[in-house]
Parts: sequence; structure tokens; C-alpha cells
Amino acid sequence: MEAIRRIVCTLAFLLLAGFAQAQSTDPLPSWNDGAAKKNILSFVATVTAKGGKDFVPPVERIATFDNDGTLWSEQPLYFQFVFLLDQVKAAAPKHPEWKDNAAFKALAAKDLKALAALGQKPVLELIVAANSGMTVAEYDAAIRKWLETAKHPKFQRPYTDLVYKPQLELLEYLRANGFKTFIVSGGTIEFMRVFSERVYGIPPEQVVGSSQLIKFEMRDGKPVLVREPKLDFIDDGPGKPVGIYRNIGRRPILAFGNSDGDQQMLEMTAAGPGKRLMLIVHHDDAEREFAYDRASHIGKLDKAWDEATARGWTVVSMKSDWKRIYPFEK
Amino acid sequence: MEAIRRIVCTLAFLLLAGFAQAQSTDPLPSWNDGAAKKNILSFVATVTAKGGKDFVPPVERIATFDNDGTLWSEQPLYFQFVFLLDQVKAAAPKHPEWKDNAAFKALAAKDLKALAALGQKPVLELIVAANSGMTVAEYDAAIRKWLETAKHPKFQRPYTDLVYKPQLELLEYLRANGFKTFIVSGGTIEFMRVFSERVYGIPPEQVVGSSQLIKFEMRDGKPVLVREPKLDFIDDGPGKPVGIYRNIGRRPILAFGNSDGDQQMLEMTAAGPGKRLMLIVHHDDAEREFAYDRASHIGKLDKAWDEATARGWTVVSMKSDWKRIYPFEK
Repeated sequence: MEAIRRIVCTLAFLLLAGFAQAQSTDPLPSWNDGAAKKNILSFVATVTAKGGKDFVPPVERIATFDNDGTLWSEQPLYFQFVFLLDQVKAAAPKHPEWKDNAAFKALAAKDLKALAALGQKPVLELIVAANSGMTVAEYDAAIRKWLETAKHPKFQRPYTDLVYKPQLELLEYLRANGFKTFIVSGGTIEFMRVFSERVYGIPPEQVVGSSQLIKFEMRDGKPVLVREPKLDFIDDGPGKPVGIYRNIGRRPILAFGNSDGDQQMLEMTAAGPGKRLMLIVHHDDAEREFAYDRASHIGKLDKAWDEATARGWTVVSMKSDWKRIYPFEK
Repeated sequence: MEAIRRIVCTLAFLLLAGFAQAQSTDPLPSWNDGAAKKNILSFVATVTAKGGKDFVPPVERIATFDNDGTLWSEQPLYFQFVFLLDQVKAAAPKHPEWKDNAAFKALAAKDLKALAALGQKPVLELIVAANSGMTVAEYDAAIRKWLETAKHPKFQRPYTDLVYKPQLELLEYLRANGFKTFIVSGGTIEFMRVFSERVYGIPPEQVVGSSQLIKFEMRDGKPVLVREPKLDFIDDGPGKPVGIYRNIGRRPILAFGNSDGDQQMLEMTAAGPGKRLMLIVHHDDAEREFAYDRASHIGKLDKAWDEATARGWTVVSMKSDWKRIYPFEK
């Protein structure tokens, strides 16, 4: 039955692929013709060519994408940090000990530069403290509510509008070619899961991220999951290959990042056998988005860029490789 | 493109479903007609009936299965514990401190009763110590090698032969009806992942289990993941709903277990809205498999059984509900 299902589905895909090709010869219309687009198309054609020496069976076509700065914007501050501002404000009266906490002081003073310089960990720890005791359902509702109303300071639009159109096309193109697409991000799983399916077509079970300790308990005779005041896992830098191992259990054949926090994920992807594709978004478009790299506190791209250059990984220039950035652009 | 792909695939499924029905009217031929089989067929028909009030969209059709005692046998000792015997023997010279360890003493004396009475945690801790320092690739190879040669003491067959034929049919039937099937087990992710895809049709990324701390490092200029001497997560009892939350992020609508270690997973599944199906395998067939429940150290079924009875969960009798147990039976 399963075998027949697969065969029928494969036939359907082939028919569809033919149909799609007749409709449009360009699966990535928001990408300018250039080396980056060519590398992507060539890689996908190679690993999906049946009988070819670099053919990869569909079950092994794992593609992992960083989120902040790779699938959506991350300036002037990681969007999840902005959410945190509201959460921490609400929780502050219950946490007098925060008055000596550097991350809290930076938040209270809206000192975004100091906050960014502190890095993800102290801020994740504040998030963890701010929402501990909440059930996961309550936390989920708080995130949804925030995302519905909050607006980005530069674009005056909901944060979930600020996803990259070329990447949405790439995700869809990969899935149409039998890839399974995953997010692997330093952000927390909850924050991404509330919109990843609707916005990226990536279901919650394919979102790998940072997480805090969760405990099962009974409240009023009902089983609930409660957030404990302890960080459990940081899915950033060397944590990313670990998160991939824990949640996916297979080495990606394609990985896409934009900062030094993605370097180890890219290295681990590159170290596997057969054809591999490693890509990095370079934010070099101050007009349409933001321009930053080596000196930035948010999304710093320095060592990973050098490695990309040395090893021939694909560096995608926002300015020259992307015809348009956001879906709302004309 | 993705939308079209889904539509074409759905149409293909419908055609296939019609074809399959014409071929055979019974998707679960190894299940005897009875309440358990009826509950399963009725549940699947209900949640997949388009336009019905209990319809569940495919993306939310999450089914979680315990492994030991639910998908394959677990007597006279969890198969992973048998693997441990060999691993610990090999590692013992490097661990003089084990001579005072209760779990190690029980292992060395082959005192299976004492070992079983100790529960999973001290034994998992020994596993963790025995293989710390190994890369995940080396550990993976050790498990594969063991599974290829080891044989079950009663059946004199490879352990991976001892999977339950009725459950293989059920997994396939659920997937053919748009369900995504997951393993959620107290066993370690590595041990299950090496055979879950081939044997159950469940890919590594849909295996949730216990795990030890993993660290990224460079060895001889190559990135590797190394096993640290620390248990990271126990996916058993109250850990199961947490593992489901961490790796899946959606509440199952069907959960299948066989012991008290599955109770919280079943409770969490039952507590969701809409139609739900909770099932428990009762090992009551000493002739064809093993018979054990309330008094057993391995796969103890006591509190979860009482709750199943009180709440009308489906208790599956191996003896009367399953026409045959193993695929190798005639």
C-alpha cells in the first residue's frame, strides 16, 4: 500500500513537474540571473537526476534554513527581542532581582546597542524567567497576540510581512523537488512555530530552535506543560548541528544561513559525502532592507564569510541577487 | 506550485484509495474483527470525513507510538539493554568506579530481575558513560553492527524481526490516510533511528526518544558530534508529552502505548479537543509472545490500565485482537 502510494505520488509529481514547466520556465522569479541562482538550480537538478552519480533519494533531501536574517529580517533588533520588551515589562514587578541584571537594564533603557552586544544568552535567560510558570498554551497565545498587533519600526507593517520573497520561492521549489525543509534557528521554537506553517509552509515539527525547560503537570485535573525558569538548549552556533542531530537525525545536503551563528551548521553540512550546497545571505541593501556584516551586533557576518570565500560557498547578495525582497513590494 | 502539488497529490490519493478498496476491503488483515479494530477504523473514517464536524486537516493528523512493547517486543529485557550488556562489557576496564554501581553490578551478574527493578535511569546513565567520547557516527556504526548479529533468546532471530505485523499495517493505514506517524519512546534516539525507517517506515526526524548531551567539535580539522558523559533527556512517563512538545509541537490525535510509561502521553492526547483515540497493547499471549502486566518490571501496565478502563480507552488484547504477531509467522 505504502509502496503503491509512493509510486502514484511520484507519477503525480512527474506529471505536475511537466505541467509546471509548461507554465513557467522559472521557479525562482524573484532571483536575478547570476551565480547564486545558477548554483541553486544546478544543485537541485544534480541531486534529483535519477540514475545520476550524485542522485540523492528524497528521504535524504534535508534542507535547513536559519530564520533571523535568512528567511525574514532581523534589524534593528531580532524580532523576538522586541516581543521580549513587552513581556519583560509585564513581568518586571515580580522580579525585583532584575534591577542588577545587565540585559534587563539595557532593555529598560531601550539601549539596543548594549542589548545586542550582550548576545543571545542573557536575553534568552530573561525571556525564560519572564514566562516561567505559564503553560505552553498561554505562552503561545501571548506570542500570537503580539504578532497580530506589533509593527516593524521602519516598514510599519506586521513582522510576519517582513519575510523574503526569494526565500519563499526557494522553499517551495525545494519541496516541489522532494526536499524536506526545516528551520534551524537561535530563536525559540514557540516564537517561530506560531507562524512558520502559514508563512513558510514549514510545519511545527520541522522547526528546530532554542528552548527552555518544560515540565508536565496536572492543573485542576488536566494535564498541562509548564515553562520552568531554566534555559534548556541554545540552538545557535555550535548548538545548530546538535539541534539538527537531536530533531532531524540526518545531515542536511543544503544549508542556508546569514551570520557567524550559522557557521557550524554550514561546516557540518559541507562535511558530508556527495554534492552539498552551502549558502549565506549577505545583507548589503540599505535601501530596500538593511546593510550590515562584520561590525554588526545583530547578525554579525565575519568568520563565516571568510570561510565561505575560502571554500567556495555561495554568498547571496541581497542587492544584486534578489529582484525583490518582500512579498508586499510591487 | 505547492498548492497545485497538494491538490494533485490528494487526487492521486483518492484514486489510489478507490483502487486499494477495490483490491481489498480490509486495510488491517492481521487484526481480528472486534472492538479494537472497529474503534480504529471508525476513528480514522471520522477524522478524515471531509465536511464532517470531526474532520481534522492532514497537517494535524499526528499519531504517536511508543516503541518497546508497542511496536516490537520488550521481553525478557528491553532490547536496548541487551545491546548495553555488550557495550558496558567493552567499556568496563576504563571505568573502575563502576564496581560500586548497582546497575553495573546487576549487569555483570546478568541479574536481569535486579536490573529491571532499577528502572531506566541508572541504566541509561551507564549507557551514557559507556559511549561518551565516541562520535555519533561511531556510535551509530556500533548499533548497526550489533543489530545485524544479535539474536533474541526465545525466537533465535534478529531483534528487528520481532516487530508486530498488526502495528506495521496500522502505521501504513494511518499514513495512507494522511497521518504523520511518530515514535515516542524511552529508548535512545540513535538506537531506534538505525532501523525505524527500514522497518516501520518512520524516518529519523520522526523518532522522539531519550538522549544524552552532544557536543560539536573539530577533530583533525573535521566537524564532528561527540557524546558527552551526561544524560540530557529522558523521554519516558511525564517526559513523553515534553518530548512531543519539543520535537513535534502539536498534540497527537492518536497515541498508542503499552505501559505506565505511556500514561502521560495518553492523558495529554486525550485532553485535546475533538475526536481522539488512545490505545494500549495488553500483553496477554504467553504462547505467541509474552504475558505480563501489573507485576512486571519490564513494561509494567498497572495505573495506565486502570485509567484506560475508567476512561474508555481502547485496550488491545494481543491474544484475541491480533490474528498474527510477527511478520515471519505463517
